[in-house]
Amino acid sequence: MLALCGGKGAGLIRMRSLGLPVPEGFVITTEACARYIEDGTLPEGLMDEVRENLAGVERATGRGFGDAENPLLVSVRSGAAVSMPGMMDTVLNLGLNDATVRGLAQSTGDERFARDSHRRFVQAFGEIVLGVPGSLFEDAIEEMKGERGAQADTDLAAEDLDELARRFRAIVAREAGAEVPDDPYEQLRLAISAVFDSWLGERAVAYRREYGIPDDLGTAVTVQRMVFGNMGETSATGVAFTRNPATGEQGIFGEFLLNAQGEDVVAGIRTPRPLREMESVLPDAYRQFLQTAERLEREYGDMQDMEFTVERDRLYMLQTRRGKRTGAAALRIARDMAGEGLISEAEAVLRVEPASLDALLHPRIDPEADLDVLARGLPASPGAATGRIVLTAQEAKSRAADGEAVLLVRRETNPDDVEGMISARGVLTALGGMTSHAAVVARGMGKPAVTGCGALKIDPTRGMIYLGGEPFEAGELLTIDGASGEVIRGEAPLVAPEPSEDFETVLRWADEARTLRVRANADTPEDARRARELGAEGIGLCRTEHMFMEGERLRIMREMILSEGEEALEEALVLLEPMQREDFEGIFRAMDGLPVTVRLLDPPLHEFLPHSKDLAKKVSDLEARGESAEEERRRLRIVEGLEEANPMLGLRGVRLGLLKPEVYLMQVRAIASAARAVREEGGDPRVEIMIPLVAFASELRTMRARIEAELAGEDIPLGTMIELPRACAVADKIASTADFFSFGTNDLTQMVCGISRDDAEEKFLADYLSGGTLSFNPFQTLDRDGVGEFVRLAIRKGKEANPALKLGVCGEHGGDPKSIAFFHEVGLDYVSCSPFRVPGARLAAAQAALGGAPV
Amino acid sequence: MLALCGGKGAGLIRMRSLGLPVPEGFVITTEACARYIEDGTLPEGLMDEVRENLAGVERATGRGFGDAENPLLVSVRSGAAVSMPGMMDTVLNLGLNDATVRGLAQSTGDERFARDSHRRFVQAFGEIVLGVPGSLFEDAIEEMKGERGAQADTDLAAEDLDELARRFRAIVAREAGAEVPDDPYEQLRLAISAVFDSWLGERAVAYRREYGIPDDLGTAVTVQRMVFGNMGETSATGVAFTRNPATGEQGIFGEFLLNAQGEDVVAGIRTPRPLREMESVLPDAYRQFLQTAERLEREYGDMQDMEFTVERDRLYMLQTRRGKRTGAAALRIARDMAGEGLISEAEAVLRVEPASLDALLHPRIDPEADLDVLARGLPASPGAATGRIVLTAQEAKSRAADGEAVLLVRRETNPDDVEGMISARGVLTALGGMTSHAAVVARGMGKPAVTGCGALKIDPTRGMIYLGGEPFEAGELLTIDGASGEVIRGEAPLVAPEPSEDFETVLRWADEARTLRVRANADTPEDARRARELGAEGIGLCRTEHMFMEGERLRIMREMILSEGEEALEEALVLLEPMQREDFEGIFRAMDGLPVTVRLLDPPLHEFLPHSKDLAKKVSDLEARGESAEEERRRLRIVEGLEEANPMLGLRGVRLGLLKPEVYLMQVRAIASAARAVREEGGDPRVEIMIPLVAFASELRTMRARIEAELAGEDIPLGTMIELPRACAVADKIASTADFFSFGTNDLTQMVCGISRDDAEEKFLADYLSGGTLSFNPFQTLDRDGVGEFVRLAIRKGKEANPALKLGVCGEHGGDPKSIAFFHEVGLDYVSCSPFRVPGARLAAAQAALGGAPV
Repeated sequence: MLALCGGKGAGLIRMRSLGLPVPEGFVITTEACARYIEDGTLPEGLMDEVRENLAGVERATGRGFGDAENPLLVSVRSGAAVSMPGMMDTVLNLGLNDATVRGLAQSTGDERFARDSHRRFVQAFGEIVLGVPGSLFEDAIEEMKGERGAQADTDLAAEDLDELARRFRAIVAREAGAEVPDDPYEQLRLAISAVFDSWLGERAVAYRREYGIPDDLGTAVTVQRMVFGNMGETSATGVAFTRNPATGEQGIFGEFLLNAQGEDVVAGIRTPRPLREMESVLPDAYRQFLQTAERLEREYGDMQDMEFTVERDRLYMLQTRRGKRTGAAALRIARDMAGEGLISEAEAVLRVEPASLDALLHPRIDPEADLDVLARGLPASPGAATGRIVLTAQEAKSRAADGEAVLLVRRETNPDDVEGMISARGVLTALGGMTSHAAVVARGMGKPAVTGCGALKIDPTRGMIYLGGEPFEAGELLTIDGASGEVIRGEAPLVAPEPSEDFETVLRWADEARTLRVRANADTPEDARRARELGAEGIGLCRTEHMFMEGERLRIMREMILSEGEEALEEALVLLEPMQREDFEGIFRAMDGLPVTVRLLDPPLHEFLPHSKDLAKKVSDLEARGESAEEERRRLRIVEGLEEANPMLGLRGVRLGLLKPEVYLMQVRAIASAARAVREEGGDPRVEIMIPLVAFASELRTMRARIEAELAGEDIPLGTMIELPRACAVADKIASTADFFSFGTNDLTQMVCGISRDDAEEKFLADYLSGGTLSFNPFQTLDRDGVGEFVRLAIRKGKEANPALKLGVCGEHGGDPKSIAFFHEVGLDYVSCSPFRVPGARLAAAQAALGGAPV
Repeated sequence: MLALCGGKGAGLIRMRSLGLPVPEGFVITTEACARYIEDGTLPEGLMDEVRENLAGVERATGRGFGDAENPLLVSVRSGAAVSMPGMMDTVLNLGLNDATVRGLAQSTGDERFARDSHRRFVQAFGEIVLGVPGSLFEDAIEEMKGERGAQADTDLAAEDLDELARRFRAIVAREAGAEVPDDPYEQLRLAISAVFDSWLGERAVAYRREYGIPDDLGTAVTVQRMVFGNMGETSATGVAFTRNPATGEQGIFGEFLLNAQGEDVVAGIRTPRPLREMESVLPDAYRQFLQTAERLEREYGDMQDMEFTVERDRLYMLQTRRGKRTGAAALRIARDMAGEGLISEAEAVLRVEPASLDALLHPRIDPEADLDVLARGLPASPGAATGRIVLTAQEAKSRAADGEAVLLVRRETNPDDVEGMISARGVLTALGGMTSHAAVVARGMGKPAVTGCGALKIDPTRGMIYLGGEPFEAGELLTIDGASGEVIRGEAPLVAPEPSEDFETVLRWADEARTLRVRANADTPEDARRARELGAEGIGLCRTEHMFMEGERLRIMREMILSEGEEALEEALVLLEPMQREDFEGIFRAMDGLPVTVRLLDPPLHEFLPHSKDLAKKVSDLEARGESAEEERRRLRIVEGLEEANPMLGLRGVRLGLLKPEVYLMQVRAIASAARAVREEGGDPRVEIMIPLVAFASELRTMRARIEAELAGEDIPLGTMIELPRACAVADKIASTADFFSFGTNDLTQMVCGISRDDAEEKFLADYLSGGTLSFNPFQTLDRDGVGEFVRLAIRKGKEANPALKLGVCGEHGGDPKSIAFFHEVGLDYVSCSPFRVPGARLAAAQAALGGAPV
């Protein structure tokens, strides 16, 4: 039914079959559309069938289509199986022309209503069916109002509206080179064709591509008798939900307008009244609507979003569909409905959108608040934060130490900023996409961030920033909303997160349903604890480099790299080893009894160093002042020696581990001794060691031998990231020396697509997405056709060579519901994602196990 | 036979079966070795069999193994099916001890000979079987010579040599903690075990890994009666080839020494005499040897490399094997032998190593010349060149314009240096690998280059360079040998290339045999002409960016990028279009009737710009001088805006084509109008347009539509590079809008392995290769397991979707024989390589078609 009649049509037919009051009409099925697409013309005989069906409507209503006395008017609406942006929506009042408009005036006794309906029809037909720009009609209305000295549209008289309809027709003739036909059947034929054409419109095609909807499905067309909510004080129109879509609270929730048409509610010209007030003015219709709503929710087993019209005290249902809802509402409704026996627990799990959970874990801006939005960037890390503008990490740190709430505002961030990010309440950057350094680090910390805010300019010398040109000084208050990307003036009222009982209950049901384990990416004991609270079943990625990127450690690390010779290296490692051990102990304690996968040092050494440009500037500054720049020059030489044309493809990961084994072996010792220490306390540490960037089986073989020698009998599973295409191709060879694979889908995506995440989002990925070259961002949702193909290959080859191989994923995709569905499908053992995405991942994993696509 | 008895053993057995004079002996087969490897001990009963066989030798020779009166001495040699570096080679004189040495002295009547044989045996046994460092024995000899006041070894008397043997045994006892056994059978047992052990030695294992030789093949051991060439003036030893290995000239070619052992020839202590002189001193043996050599060449059907000994007028053959030869000799021998009916033409084609042809096309250093080699770098582009040192491209250009021969010496090169490279005779760089900018560009130009010369330091401010510490001023003469990587003081005598009739003939046979077409990578009419002369059947890759990188064009290109706004872009394109068209016309004329694949602009825009560091320096210099730096600052901002963290994975290729379509469309117009112009002249241009860096089918679809619109009916095939792993995974989708695929295996290798060619060779690839982590450089020889897997995938999917799809390759691998074998195997239509590699590629393609692995 849905496939044949579309969402709207199916809903109407179902309501009608339940005996509910639906205006008479019929549906032209998607099959007709499919034939139209193939032939480029309406199927033969279609218009005959339309006439036949219209005749039935005429008989049932006692009106005639095109009848000048008692005209039948119809609405024409498109309706595919899924609602689709960019498709023609609705043309109302079809059937009006100079003759029938008079009949309408007579039969309703309302001249102005009839004239207004007519000019609305010409406008809608011109705009939607014939493609005339809507602004031309708006301009004509304004002009007419000027001529008549009218303030509002409602001040225009019936004659004015009649004149307006004439002017509209002139505009249509001029712009479209076509007339609005007088013949109602011709109107109908064109409207039907327009619906079919809109199926092939650019945006609709792009949308289908994105969601993998086949092009040949087609759309249905619903033709239905017009009913009017604007026939005086016994008429009304309204929309309602069967439960509160914001909170999920039980009981009908909606709005209505007396003496109005549906579009008036949407246009917001008049403020609608709460639905419950309808009880006093239209008590019968109200009671009937309540019963209808309850019936529909029971029939559909889900919260419904309904449109209705009351025409002269008679209720008509115009639409019913699944109601959109907030995350909190989704949880409550799912739990309540399962409690009410309306749906099963499994069904309840399928009813909540995983991505909606993230927002529930962060403070957010009070949805009731009036905000002064200054600019908009990318919603890089959810949650809202208010703080005083600071422009450097150093200042963030010192002012936060004084107890101030600060927002770190930067052009972009790098490892030097991490401490500042820790100190700040939130981060705002001018550059960088959803997967920029700022975004990734902030999400990892669960800290709100807005990135890529193009309207932000920073003038560090003056200590000023500009938001869309308006100046703000450091120290002024701003609020950022990491869920919407908004940058707001001053302090916005925040609402604290409340992990509700609904949340806990639905997540418990999800845990019972899923087979995929969910771990977290966590680098500190605090992150580990938080992840565990959010339901993580271990750590899938503990990045040891983040441990080197703060304060004293960064200083030691820099000294080590910048000083030459083995001795300095040894000295630095002696200092770093106890620090690493301490971190590991904390993490192992927090994850007691659960697996913790520690990845050995991954990034290239120059990531720990100052930029050569900054050093070069220092050198020339020193020289300009006549001071000695020898030491800075030496450092510059080393930094430049480490620079790489393409660091992503350079000396890092296991390559560095093989070339400078001292660092890896220090890490291995720290891991082993931390595990021993925790075990001696009576704990149960379950550590696994992971080697990054393996391309050749020989790399892992050699590294494994060295690590095992260092472990001296300590039994720790050893595995590798699979993050290079080559590793997928030779996964069988690699698997024979690996205990586990963890797919590093971030890097794998970069290599497979040949796209640098650091550069691409700004430089061309955004254009690709907006221009339709790409229908999804492969760094957010796993690219099934490309990257997915290689993941499957690696799994097949890896399992063949080593059936005991454990399989996981630790890229950003580990927290993305669609990607999780893929990982479930290909048989991974676990996914790993940032702590705040863990609940969503648990839910998505359950939905995948229950066979439901993520909503 | 070869598998069971190894190369040496099989040769000896064959010679014996031909009735040729071979000393008595036997072969322990590779099966025994395989069992030794498995069990870790000699197979049971092996030594019994050895005794039995030795008894046979004793009977045949009338001597006794360990017999104090008339001792039998034997040699023990390893011999696998392929000769393998790192394996134990030979122990001579086995069977000597204090008793038998006296018997040897008596039976030969030569006390000194016997004592010398004994100390040589102890030394060899200690060194080869027991692993004592050879230098200790050498030191002991020097010490003894000092004690005795001896100048040469030959000044030591028999007693001295006896004393030396004692001291040697003491050294062995001390160093190896083991005695040289007196029991000859124990000597033999240990020597056999040592041969087997050396099969498992590190270098032998690495070698097998490189050449894909299974570890369980094992080596054979040949045990053979010693014969002595050092028994006076009727004895001799020598080596000879059946034809001249340097020129291929017919007729025996060799050297001999009277009264000497084989190792004396090798050690170079005495200068051997030309073999023909043996006719006068040992006429019978000489005649017999000539007959034997001729017989062997006929039997083996190939030029032989033989070792022989004459013991008291009797000839003994000690070895025969295929003789190594130069490229020129290989061609001549192959052609002659086919002419003589010894081998077929197909066999002749298989006899020449493709890589050896390249050197024949370039001037090379006279092999007879005495050279003062100052340093050694990578042999980046073959050929030799002498010229005066210049340190900048500008100077190279101006001095070359004055008619001077110059060598461009740079730390590394970039596009700014290309003009200087054109002007210079050769290029020498301190940094950069075999596939660095300098190497690739020089090979493309057919210009000698040595890159990555670590001993080279450049001091541009003083106008000096240092080679291994020794200073040279700009203007001094140097010679580089791009085939060996040597940097030579002054002017070395060069030999001009002579494409011989041998060359033409063998290549003609190759062309008849091969199925794979060979095209060239060429960017200029000159390159195209040269490529055609060398047999190219079209151009597989015409890089349009190289056309922008010289002189006036580079200036216009820079202006275009550095100036903002559409207008400047349009202006620049108007200037560039006729230049491009002219280039294309020249290329189409040179390749008349043959396909020319033009690749649209590939590199990121910043490759055309000055480095931001240089600009930043300019800005601060200007500011320091108090001058206005506004314009430079503006340029710096633009250059920085275009900078990317990983340009290899950035905004280039089709991405740039989609974002800034004006440049691609200008190129398309230039191509189409050039084709029209050449056609109007009566020519037959066959151009194909190639889009680089396609990852998504939608990119090619969109670009194709735009290009076709621009072509306005001109019928030009459109294809794409396959150089991203993703393109391989979705090759079916891409193939449906492509007329051809050209595998860009350079970039594909970078992406598949996650290795940046620009960085890796210096930073870790060299270590990987020397340390055995990698057995081959994937940028020189196609990585079958990794990259090859993706190539196969793309071919399968591409052909499925579009059976008419043409397939080629245009990466560096297109000229590599092993890679060509792969490309033949997977069914490509053509390979494309730099012009000078075309002949080698033709040969390699023929060898692949004939089923022979490249030699």
